[in-house]
Amino acid sequence: MAVYTHITDDDLAAFLTQYEVGELTSFSGIAEGVENTNFLVRTTTGTYILTLYEKRVEVADLPFFLNLMTHLSASGLSCPTPVLGRDGIALKELNGRPAAMVTFLEGVWPRRIQPDHCRSLGGAMASLHQAGTTFEMRRVNALSVASWRPLLTSCGLPARKIYHNLYNELNIELSWLERQWPTDLPAGIIHADMFPDNVFFLREEVSGIIDFYFACTDILVYDLAICLNAWCFESDGSFNVTKSKLMTAAYQQIRPLSEQELAALPVLARGSAMRFLLTRLYDWLNQPEDALVKPKDPREYLKKLHFHQQVTRLGAYGLE
Amino acid sequence: MAVYTHITDDDLAAFLTQYEVGELTSFSGIAEGVENTNFLVRTTTGTYILTLYEKRVEVADLPFFLNLMTHLSASGLSCPTPVLGRDGIALKELNGRPAAMVTFLEGVWPRRIQPDHCRSLGGAMASLHQAGTTFEMRRVNALSVASWRPLLTSCGLPARKIYHNLYNELNIELSWLERQWPTDLPAGIIHADMFPDNVFFLREEVSGIIDFYFACTDILVYDLAICLNAWCFESDGSFNVTKSKLMTAAYQQIRPLSEQELAALPVLARGSAMRFLLTRLYDWLNQPEDALVKPKDPREYLKKLHFHQQVTRLGAYGLE
Repeated sequence: MAVYTHITDDDLAAFLTQYEVGELTSFSGIAEGVENTNFLVRTTTGTYILTLYEKRVEVADLPFFLNLMTHLSASGLSCPTPVLGRDGIALKELNGRPAAMVTFLEGVWPRRIQPDHCRSLGGAMASLHQAGTTFEMRRVNALSVASWRPLLTSCGLPARKIYHNLYNELNIELSWLERQWPTDLPAGIIHADMFPDNVFFLREEVSGIIDFYFACTDILVYDLAICLNAWCFESDGSFNVTKSKLMTAAYQQIRPLSEQELAALPVLARGSAMRFLLTRLYDWLNQPEDALVKPKDPREYLKKLHFHQQVTRLGAYGLE
Repeated sequence: MAVYTHITDDDLAAFLTQYEVGELTSFSGIAEGVENTNFLVRTTTGTYILTLYEKRVEVADLPFFLNLMTHLSASGLSCPTPVLGRDGIALKELNGRPAAMVTFLEGVWPRRIQPDHCRSLGGAMASLHQAGTTFEMRRVNALSVASWRPLLTSCGLPARKIYHNLYNELNIELSWLERQWPTDLPAGIIHADMFPDNVFFLREEVSGIIDFYFACTDILVYDLAICLNAWCFESDGSFNVTKSKLMTAAYQQIRPLSEQELAALPVLARGSAMRFLLTRLYDWLNQPEDALVKPKDPREYLKKLHFHQQVTRLGAYGLE
């Protein structure tokens, strides 16, 4: 939870005159969101989320993210819709920060994942991938396989703080991933960070997907591999094959996977575990003294990596 | 800003079945509120604030606070109205914490105080005092003059960290206050913490008063003295007599002050400065290592105390 940048009522009221959203009636900082500062803003016309983009977001990427959300919601996907200013532009500035306002989505993100959440998510993810095919902008995945070695190197030997052989183990795994990583699978827009706190539900149905600030152009089924890691493990570390079976089946009802995509799933799942393990490891080793956000434990993803390493057939994911 | 206690969607949905408020559609932790954890909760019937009471609130006092808010809103004052459960009771429990839900109020608290804010606040405060006359519960002000000496003693000589003679200076002031403190002025319900972040405005008019968790039975005009300190000083430390003149005049339009009340205002203003100086000093000297909330600078109230010490006539407050 974090509000990095504070705003005043006067500044916000003046900011809102750039839009046709009526007058400010209330606002509060939201204690969620790790990267940016978010405010819930109510006006005489509706409820909005105002995001001030903090240092970790590349300003040059913001038009990609905002245009993507506009495109996806125009395609019928339930995601935040950027509000355009009177000048037709969504990206503004507030208190020296890039800022944008999006529509508020109803729904709650699930703290305890039920199998039906995974089923509904599978379908929503496939719809997102299909809606993305007509989006024309592109963005390289800055956290794909090519970035992992520099990330591991910058963690370096202090990785031993987690456990003594971690650096060597990841070094070996990474060499294997670099050799095995597929290069000929269907690519397109992926969300790339579809964790439970980025997916809203009403009852067990997806009511909205938020936080597109890692979205990029990459292997579509890699998004599914990320979700196997983010949604299908229980808190005791065990993999719940019922959840993955429901997720992948619902996905394939909308976008069937080719044999090549299915065959690549285990390596993509290992790669996805490596990606989150490395960024968490980096954040763990480099936490600032005055951090508002406690870094997540990298060991969770080490365990997930170990699970995928011992997978020998797709039945382990409920896919045979 | 602080969310001390986390809740899950499942727990919250189950909690809400105790009320007739429909089904949960969204919730977010609010990054405001120093003492308690607050969530903005939306259901199919409306928007509410859910408060989980943390350690600093006396559970035995909660019926007083909740009944007071119910009484004041029934009297036409715009303040949060506690939502009663199906059993007619407002005070519940969630995640092992006492919890209550109140109606959401539109409005924003002003970061830059304008004279008109002070004018509107004066009237709202007088209305609150009048509405309080028909409320039958009582609560001693645990932070009135009698509590200041133990508070100063518990700060002790480390008060030197602020400046070398602070302890002695406050000791002398406190002896004076103890002798001068009035005992025969009209008493009743006061808010006792009516700082700008507890008063919502739409344009320049008060739209609601929140956070009654310091409310108590005490000298009515002491509330006004608190507000002179909280609203009428500029950020450079100077006292803005235009603001105090507007505030006290608007107050008196609804509840005229007697000569005795007016005469006591300077000592009450010194006392109010002492009260916030001492609690801030205590929090400053006793901040926990892992504090989520940065303590406020006690020196701000030392400067305010010095201002009131040199007041010789009521004209200094715009009251002649």
